[in-house]
Amino acid sequence: MSKIDDLVDAEMSNVVSDLQALIRQPSVSARKQRLVECANLVAKIMEVAGIENEILYQHQLDNKKEQREGEVDDAPPIVYGEYKSKSNPNGRTILFYNHYDVQPEDPLDLWEGKDAFSGKVEGNYIFGRGSADDKGELITRIKAVEYYLKKTGDVPCNVKFVVEGEEEVGSPHLKDYLINYQTKFRCDGVIWESGFIDAKGIPIISLGQKGILCVELITKGPCRDVHSSLAVLIENPAWRLITALNTIRSVTGEILIKDWYKEVRAFTDEELAVLENEPFNEDELKKVYGVQKFLNNAKGIAVKIAFAGSPTCNISSLISGYSGEGSKTVLPATARAKLDFRLVPEMDPERQMHRLTKHLREHGYNTEQEIEVKFLSGEGAARVPISIPFLKPVKEAALEIYGDFIISVSSAGTGPMYYFQKILGAPCVCIGGSELSNKSHSPNESMRLDLLNKTIKCMAKILEKTNTY
Amino acid sequence: MSKIDDLVDAEMSNVVSDLQALIRQPSVSARKQRLVECANLVAKIMEVAGIENEILYQHQLDNKKEQREGEVDDAPPIVYGEYKSKSNPNGRTILFYNHYDVQPEDPLDLWEGKDAFSGKVEGNYIFGRGSADDKGELITRIKAVEYYLKKTGDVPCNVKFVVEGEEEVGSPHLKDYLINYQTKFRCDGVIWESGFIDAKGIPIISLGQKGILCVELITKGPCRDVHSSLAVLIENPAWRLITALNTIRSVTGEILIKDWYKEVRAFTDEELAVLENEPFNEDELKKVYGVQKFLNNAKGIAVKIAFAGSPTCNISSLISGYSGEGSKTVLPATARAKLDFRLVPEMDPERQMHRLTKHLREHGYNTEQEIEVKFLSGEGAARVPISIPFLKPVKEAALEIYGDFIISVSSAGTGPMYYFQKILGAPCVCIGGSELSNKSHSPNESMRLDLLNKTIKCMAKILEKTNTY
Repeated sequence: MSKIDDLVDAEMSNVVSDLQALIRQPSVSARKQRLVECANLVAKIMEVAGIENEILYQHQLDNKKEQREGEVDDAPPIVYGEYKSKSNPNGRTILFYNHYDVQPEDPLDLWEGKDAFSGKVEGNYIFGRGSADDKGELITRIKAVEYYLKKTGDVPCNVKFVVEGEEEVGSPHLKDYLINYQTKFRCDGVIWESGFIDAKGIPIISLGQKGILCVELITKGPCRDVHSSLAVLIENPAWRLITALNTIRSVTGEILIKDWYKEVRAFTDEELAVLENEPFNEDELKKVYGVQKFLNNAKGIAVKIAFAGSPTCNISSLISGYSGEGSKTVLPATARAKLDFRLVPEMDPERQMHRLTKHLREHGYNTEQEIEVKFLSGEGAARVPISIPFLKPVKEAALEIYGDFIISVSSAGTGPMYYFQKILGAPCVCIGGSELSNKSHSPNESMRLDLLNKTIKCMAKILEKTNTY
Repeated sequence: MSKIDDLVDAEMSNVVSDLQALIRQPSVSARKQRLVECANLVAKIMEVAGIENEILYQHQLDNKKEQREGEVDDAPPIVYGEYKSKSNPNGRTILFYNHYDVQPEDPLDLWEGKDAFSGKVEGNYIFGRGSADDKGELITRIKAVEYYLKKTGDVPCNVKFVVEGEEEVGSPHLKDYLINYQTKFRCDGVIWESGFIDAKGIPIISLGQKGILCVELITKGPCRDVHSSLAVLIENPAWRLITALNTIRSVTGEILIKDWYKEVRAFTDEELAVLENEPFNEDELKKVYGVQKFLNNAKGIAVKIAFAGSPTCNISSLISGYSGEGSKTVLPATARAKLDFRLVPEMDPERQMHRLTKHLREHGYNTEQEIEVKFLSGEGAARVPISIPFLKPVKEAALEIYGDFIISVSSAGTGPMYYFQKILGAPCVCIGGSELSNKSHSPNESMRLDLLNKTIKCMAKILEKTNTY
């Protein structure tokens, strides 16, 4: 038990109403929608919690100060929060990294009658885009500090918050902020924006994230959509896109670009041992996602190695030609595919981008005229060594609140952990209250109320333990 | 000169205003939009012209008469028009086949400030979806009859009109109408719904049309769009679609499905001689469509043979995943491609559909569960022999009005000519007033006013000549 458990239980309706207020701001970074408004709301919730707060705008960054007056920021602001422990001002500092932006809500028709931004509560669940990723996780951290202050007038260690608004589009400006505010953000360890609870209710403490390279391939055909009878004479850019894509990946998922895997290192024996012990409910995962088998019929340790350590090439979007009902016999002017390549440590997004472009050129695609290879975003991968001391308070907190924990070498997802490690030099640890079945990034995203409650208590416990290691 | 040339010149503002009224009905058959309204308008214009007219509904067809009361027709109606020549009631009958439906207007943002359904006139052009294909062509035929009646109180031969509302979606119900009304529609020759004028102002008299098979391929992945980090374990249906498509067509455009070309016969020597003489401005075509070269760098007779006689496989639509701005890292639940295969005489759409499905199965795609092969529409190809007598009045009319003509073995496009030949046993000849630069099926579709004028005169001349051969 943490010191504030009874207060957390008493205040759950306040937790839910603040989370609802956050969900009701449709802060979709892909559309740059209501981001400043959502940042203001986060700052207001911190204010009420008693946390010193500040909104950091892009134009305040040192390298942006010469920006012309009236020019609008490209980047949404970061909400910074801080509380210096009165009892332990020279002790350790924990930084909570979160984000207030969300994924787009479409396809809207699959939200089962629930508004994507309603924050509706049904039984033990709160629904809505961001209810888990990441507004649900964010609220647990703010509330842990709020109730600590309310109960004791202090927090057991120094606390900082960095809450950004571009995580779902690859955090393109976070690096600038981290470099600019290196001193302000200094800390001994970062609690990452999210973490999973497995089907048995045990938290997974994850120590790494894959990187990502997002690109768009755009093939160009005739100067406009033309009548498809001309397909006999005019090359269709959709066919060029398909043959180009087909050179990139084998049917077994292997990426066929030269040197793609050059920097990939195998897991160490220590990592493999942790992987071996990591529970992984294959059947549950298949059931949740409605698939009969995994890619290449993978099973056992192969699944775990792939999940934690294999690069991927995913198609997230294909668009060409007529998108309406029925037939329209056109030969499209363009065809577009968006790809996201997950990367593992030492794979550099820019270098991989260069290799992709070179690959297409060498396969006969003119990357100047015929096919545009557009860089959308890139982030490096990160893995924290299993031996870091900062893991101790997190493990102890998890054990006290949940009775058990699982260590995971790396999550399969991506975030800007790489920048925190490189720029702040701080170890990052993922722990949170999300479940696989929360449908993050999908329709009907939800969060369990009892896990919101437990996660606040766990965060409080981490604060209590941080100065003990 | 035809007998009504001066009247046509005097009445051009009436021609334009009736065409504008037609364009202003957005009768998009792919969306089943305002089709009955447009049919009523066509009937009204015929009525004013003095042409007996009737709207034929699907539920009136013999095989539909047991349809329950209140049930809505799947098919839009056909507008039937007739005028029996008083001076020549037992002479020949010409049937004008046209359609009042249009292609969808998107992409809307490429309409250069012009509403797709405005019918705006600028200089020598009228703009709008359907201004050429096929409302512009339709109006020339109605007006030829109208002005003949106005000037002489009669027409020189019997005239019939069949104006359907589903040509742009493959005329799925026309066959039923033709079978049902075989007697009513009986005629000696059909003037087809459209025909082209070349860059030098010479009409192309075309004697054939390719067939078509439209299908949709739908691949299925997880039960909903999921986070793309799962691409390491879950097969992405967009990748399955791409590998499947890649088995269908070679980079040179050859269709790789077994027996696809089995029934295709080569052109006869007579057809080849006509093809040789057919002018074909390769540079002009490349300029209009903004391409540097043709598929496989084809030139000369190879271009003509391909255009008139080669089957194609075109992608008219690709859709998967996130279609908005920016990145959304999802692994899509489904991926969809719409294909249209152009067919040549003796290729049967149903048999080709069966070959496609078999091909996918033999290449390891489970067509029950993993990939759905959906039939959208199919039409056979048609070619009228070069020696038919009905060609004589058409050639003579073209010679008198335009000073020259070109005979084309077959157009590259598709229409339901096959049914007219098989069911009515009537030869079909294409002649009209459209230009390649009219941008039919594309944004900024237009029709030249001087060609509307000339085409009315040419139609009048055909009526004059029909009883002379």
